[in-house]
Amino acid sequence: MAENAIVRADGRSFDQLRPVTIERGWSAQAEGSALISFGGTKVLCTASFTNGVPRWLTGKGKGWVTAEYAMLPRATNSRNDRESVKGRIGGRTHEISRLIGRALRAVVDTKALGENTIVIDCDVLQADGGTRTAAITGAYVALADAIEWGREKKFIGKNSTPLIDSVSAISVGIIDGVPMLDLPYVEDVRAETDMNIVVTGRGLFVEVQGTAEGAPFDKRELDALLELGVKGCAELREHQIAALEA
Amino acid sequence: MAENAIVRADGRSFDQLRPVTIERGWSAQAEGSALISFGGTKVLCTASFTNGVPRWLTGKGKGWVTAEYAMLPRATNSRNDRESVKGRIGGRTHEISRLIGRALRAVVDTKALGENTIVIDCDVLQADGGTRTAAITGAYVALADAIEWGREKKFIGKNSTPLIDSVSAISVGIIDGVPMLDLPYVEDVRAETDMNIVVTGRGLFVEVQGTAEGAPFDKRELDALLELGVKGCAELREHQIAALEA
Amino acid sequence: MAENAIVRADGRSFDQLRPVTIERGWSAQAEGSALISFGGTKVLCTASFTNGVPRWLTGKGKGWVTAEYAMLPRATNSRNDRESVKGRIGGRTHEISRLIGRALRAVVDTKALGENTIVIDCDVLQADGGTRTAAITGAYVALADAIEWGREKKFIGKNSTPLIDSVSAISVGIIDGVPMLDLPYVEDVRAETDMNIVVTGRGLFVEVQGTAEGAPFDKRELDALLELGVKGCAELREHQIAALEA
Amino acid sequence: MAENAIVRADGRSFDQLRPVTIERGWSAQAEGSALISFGGTKVLCTASFTNGVPRWLTGKGKGWVTAEYAMLPRATNSRNDRESVKGRIGGRTHEISRLIGRALRAVVDTKALGENTIVIDCDVLQADGGTRTAAITGAYVALADAIEWGREKKFIGKNSTPLIDSVSAISVGIIDGVPMLDLPYVEDVRAETDMNIVVTGRGLFVEVQGTAEGAPFDKRELDALLELGVKGCAELREHQIAALEA
Amino acid sequence: MAENAIVRADGRSFDQLRPVTIERGWSAQAEGSALISFGGTKVLCTASFTNGVPRWLTGKGKGWVTAEYAMLPRATNSRNDRESVKGRIGGRTHEISRLIGRALRAVVDTKALGENTIVIDCDVLQADGGTRTAAITGAYVALADAIEWGREKKFIGKNSTPLIDSVSAISVGIIDGVPMLDLPYVEDVRAETDMNIVVTGRGLFVEVQGTAEGAPFDKRELDALLELGVKGCAELREHQIAALEA
Amino acid sequence: MAENAIVRADGRSFDQLRPVTIERGWSAQAEGSALISFGGTKVLCTASFTNGVPRWLTGKGKGWVTAEYAMLPRATNSRNDRESVKGRIGGRTHEISRLIGRALRAVVDTKALGENTIVIDCDVLQADGGTRTAAITGAYVALADAIEWGREKKFIGKNSTPLIDSVSAISVGIIDGVPMLDLPYVEDVRAETDMNIVVTGRGLFVEVQGTAEGAPFDKRELDALLELGVKGCAELREHQIAALEA
Repeated sequence: MAENAIVRADGRSFDQLRPVTIERGWSAQAEGSALISFGGTKVLCTASFTNGVPRWLTGKGKGWVTAEYAMLPRATNSRNDRESVKGRIGGRTHEISRLIGRALRAVVDTKALGENTIVIDCDVLQADGGTRTAAITGAYVALADAIEWGREKKFIGKNSTPLIDSVSAISVGIIDGVPMLDLPYVEDVRAETDMNIVVTGRGLFVEVQGTAEGAPFDKRELDALLELGVKGCAELREHQIAALEA
Repeated sequence: MAENAIVRADGRSFDQLRPVTIERGWSAQAEGSALISFGGTKVLCTASFTNGVPRWLTGKGKGWVTAEYAMLPRATNSRNDRESVKGRIGGRTHEISRLIGRALRAVVDTKALGENTIVIDCDVLQADGGTRTAAITGAYVALADAIEWGREKKFIGKNSTPLIDSVSAISVGIIDGVPMLDLPYVEDVRAETDMNIVVTGRGLFVEVQGTAEGAPFDKRELDALLELGVKGCAELREHQIAALEA
Repeated sequence: MAENAIVRADGRSFDQLRPVTIERGWSAQAEGSALISFGGTKVLCTASFTNGVPRWLTGKGKGWVTAEYAMLPRATNSRNDRESVKGRIGGRTHEISRLIGRALRAVVDTKALGENTIVIDCDVLQADGGTRTAAITGAYVALADAIEWGREKKFIGKNSTPLIDSVSAISVGIIDGVPMLDLPYVEDVRAETDMNIVVTGRGLFVEVQGTAEGAPFDKRELDALLELGVKGCAELREHQIAALEA
Repeated sequence: MAENAIVRADGRSFDQLRPVTIERGWSAQAEGSALISFGGTKVLCTASFTNGVPRWLTGKGKGWVTAEYAMLPRATNSRNDRESVKGRIGGRTHEISRLIGRALRAVVDTKALGENTIVIDCDVLQADGGTRTAAITGAYVALADAIEWGREKKFIGKNSTPLIDSVSAISVGIIDGVPMLDLPYVEDVRAETDMNIVVTGRGLFVEVQGTAEGAPFDKRELDALLELGVKGCAELREHQIAALEA
Repeated sequence: MAENAIVRADGRSFDQLRPVTIERGWSAQAEGSALISFGGTKVLCTASFTNGVPRWLTGKGKGWVTAEYAMLPRATNSRNDRESVKGRIGGRTHEISRLIGRALRAVVDTKALGENTIVIDCDVLQADGGTRTAAITGAYVALADAIEWGREKKFIGKNSTPLIDSVSAISVGIIDGVPMLDLPYVEDVRAETDMNIVVTGRGLFVEVQGTAEGAPFDKRELDALLELGVKGCAELREHQIAALEA
Repeated sequence: MAENAIVRADGRSFDQLRPVTIERGWSAQAEGSALISFGGTKVLCTASFTNGVPRWLTGKGKGWVTAEYAMLPRATNSRNDRESVKGRIGGRTHEISRLIGRALRAVVDTKALGENTIVIDCDVLQADGGTRTAAITGAYVALADAIEWGREKKFIGKNSTPLIDSVSAISVGIIDGVPMLDLPYVEDVRAETDMNIVVTGRGLFVEVQGTAEGAPFDKRELDALLELGVKGCAELREHQIAALEA
């Protein structure tokens, strides 16, 4: 089937993002924050800046950026038990928290950050596919503001530039043999192959995580997915710029 | 000092609520939901309706209503570790979850609800004092919509009226000897006595929880606080009606 | 029904306490201790005095008093699993531990206590209603002895008076429309409204926790309950004095 | 040094037990109970009888007896954190619980018990050495009464004899080269070798657990310890008989 | 620097695997097992076959394959605390367990497997980089034998072919700008980009997980890494065949 | 039945060990290691040497030796859930870890060890009875090598002799009334009495742990078991010497 002939359930073309909104500064408490939405997916990202670093990093003249991801129990169509009630964090949560942290550290010069710590919390208020990619994209905005806050408070030197690039992320997948951009939940569950791509503002890859949920994929399919993902991330980059300039 | 002469930091009089907003139906996923704000305090309340009851209640012809309260890590001025990461729920969280559940059950006829379960999640997105009272007040709106949903889905009989009253809650306290209504964080930490009052739409008490944080209090002070609280809850009742009629 | 006409299952009048015993110094190990009974409810209260304070309080010239409440697995009519085996402390346990700690701190001048910590353990050996109020009442006796021990050991200055008042607690409730004092288990489960009242030796309120288990209550009922509770606490005060003077 | 010349700190001879008391039926709630003391060691033993067995034993026509041991936080000279607060049970607690359970099962004919479960809780209220042996000795009394209760309630057949023997336990140790019976805490910490011996009423061994805390021991020393232990258990047997006949 | 000119610390060329050994049937207990080594990395893989499936899958006529990965505390150069002692599984462990499970399920026809469950345990006995890829490669051998066992026991139908392909995995990375195959620990820590590739016997991708540890990477580098990985997996496929035919 | 007439399922006589192998230095990572087998039981023992001691021992001029025991999930005939997944360590694991630690400390002069810590990990790769005794026997070899390593690294003084004796362990039991040495799983489950004996190279007892699983035992049986155990440990001592001299 020709890609161009596809009409998706929500009317988008195969290479089109869902509507993106970024409410920068949503939180009155955090040093940086953004409420980001990719269609029905809504993630509240807050950045907490603290002076000092964890003990294992003390005295090395470097800062630390880390992230925690979580989902409200009724973010999804049916309610999930809270991980705090279960007393343990699930594998999926751990995996996504680690992914977000790596993605952000890839665009931070920790020496320029100085001995400061930024913790990014990404809490999914409503989930409709692509929560980890929305989280990374929104987290970058919160991170940028927290760094700016640190600069104003003189925790970061005037001539230091901790942010060396921007970063955004998007999901892509193959459905009925056709590569698609930005999968909502209904498409995600049907995808034969699911891929999350994290790309810097300069267009370089930070993470490429492709998984054959249904059928293994070949190099040609992989290339098509990467191309779509790079295109999507470039568009998200524009949304980030618009939010940060607002 | 005469009560009327008091001017609070945010310009309110001693018996005035902070601005209240209730965004009913905030969540596209839950059977009932409300994003409620008392000034800077914002709580997302979702109600999850499921057919059936926990095993210990099976076959008794009665439904079940319960609640869970939690706070996002950066809802407050400085970041708190997640309870899911700590692997255990703190005493304060437990206490508030139980309070919300009791408050809601006080206005539900569980026989009329039938063998259905409603779980209310109250997640504090931003905290500035009074989170438990905002949670109860918003939870009632989410609960009302979830019950309506159950009726439409025929899980609840046409002639059944599970909601026998409404319920709202407010905090009151004594600061520098003066009873005050609806304390934000800066007042809460200064209060000699802190009280949370849960009142039905008919003006009856469901919960009265007064604690001497600083100095023990006498009967006259207790009466003054109760009077303020009843007044505040009556005003919140109007906000609930307005939201549910919107 | 006239209150005076009521005869309770155990033959008491509506405003009568169950038999109270306080075995001061029950433990040979603790700095202060009391085995208290309110009828069939028996609570072992021990006070552990240690020099120094938790890290977050160090250097402020103030002491710390805290409490932990627990129940033996077969204190009740049927056996409950141990919280240590379940690996987590339940909400009820947390809530009561916090209540006891607040009640005791309300009568302690932590500056006069100096940088010393007193941990009160209240372990319910047998439960028949009112365990939290018996715990507070017995804990005061253990606390008083631990403070005396600290004074003898010179951890507390000769002229310091850390105990600024005494404190006791009692449960009250409305059963079949009649307010009653000191509910045993069989009455507790039938109560429409259940209230725990913590009162100082001077007759001031430290905590007032009223909950409508069955039907919401009005101001007149609340006042009747408060009056009964104050009366009961005054009688408990006499038992405390007798124990401490023995 | 000749054994007979030894005078122990508490005035006992090397082969003498500390004063033993057994308050049978201490608990008004449990089906069987005993508050046992070996000198300053006090253990509350309760036996909870329930009809039915754990799932893994269902349908085999056999009953189940198990035990849980724990210590109150201030049973000892300095306070220990609660295992419920730590969220995990320590190795020592596990080990002793398992020992008590095995000791009791050694004298129970589980077929004669029928599909019933008896859980023995041994809570150390005050600790001064030998807590596990006091627990076993007191648990037997609680167990005997719980079995009698089951017989009265007809859960156990009239002609069934689940108790095939009695069981008691004592600690022995070598101090300064001299074997001693029933070590209090001050002796226990000084013992080169520490042994716990569990013996049936007929004088057979159920458990022999000897540990060289200081110096390894030879066969002659082992024999001397066993002889002392058998003697001590025989005396404890008399105390058990007296308590059960009271 | 030309790839061909590179000499690695262990003398390998850039596209050469470390010595691979597969001891099939290492465990006398499991239905399938393999002790696999990639150089100094040694992983014991066991497959446990049980009749029946988890409750959530019951009655769907499909089987289940899952995996758990863990590392002995002293598998690495310095000792790590046990996850059982810490009481929680780390994010890395979760992530790798999930990866192994997905990789194996990609080559299993769960309908053909019938309602049977196979749990693969991959325990790293010694770690020197590439533990997750060795685990996947060895797990396939254990899985194949467990399926054969199930067929012999008639749990799997004679004409069913649950294994639809083979699967192996290898790590690749960019070090000093040069793509390299199969990184030992010393290379892994220096890699700018690290990628794990899971490939079927037919040469299709199951997982592609590339992470920029140091510098983001471009499409050309990604392609070079993929090519190396496919080559390595093909060679591992030969080792698997040899082991299974032995 | 005469002992000499017994033929065991594996053809051994009543007083014969299973084949013993000790692969010293199995791990390339640990300071000392041994893969020991007693018939089908295989335990990997590694010793981790670190300079310094736990905080509670600091400054006392003494070292510390401790041990942790664990079993791979499929070491046994059917798979057991991982303790890391269950989030808690079982009583049996705790008990055996403590036993191994005590056994090793009995032959170590901690003053001569200096302020160094040795952690012994005993991981059962395959289980067929006697895992704790194989663990102790192998752990001694790993310990001896770790101490030698510490001496070479000058963490231990040239003239210090931390190892004051050797130690080995074996299980014995009574089956059908006949005492037997070194029980494999099939015998272990049938044993009326089960005993683990830990003996030093000089033939002194470190631990004697006898348990009546079926019928209580008398002094004559105990003596027969001890004699068998001492004989078995002496033979294991020869295997240890051979391994350490290899």
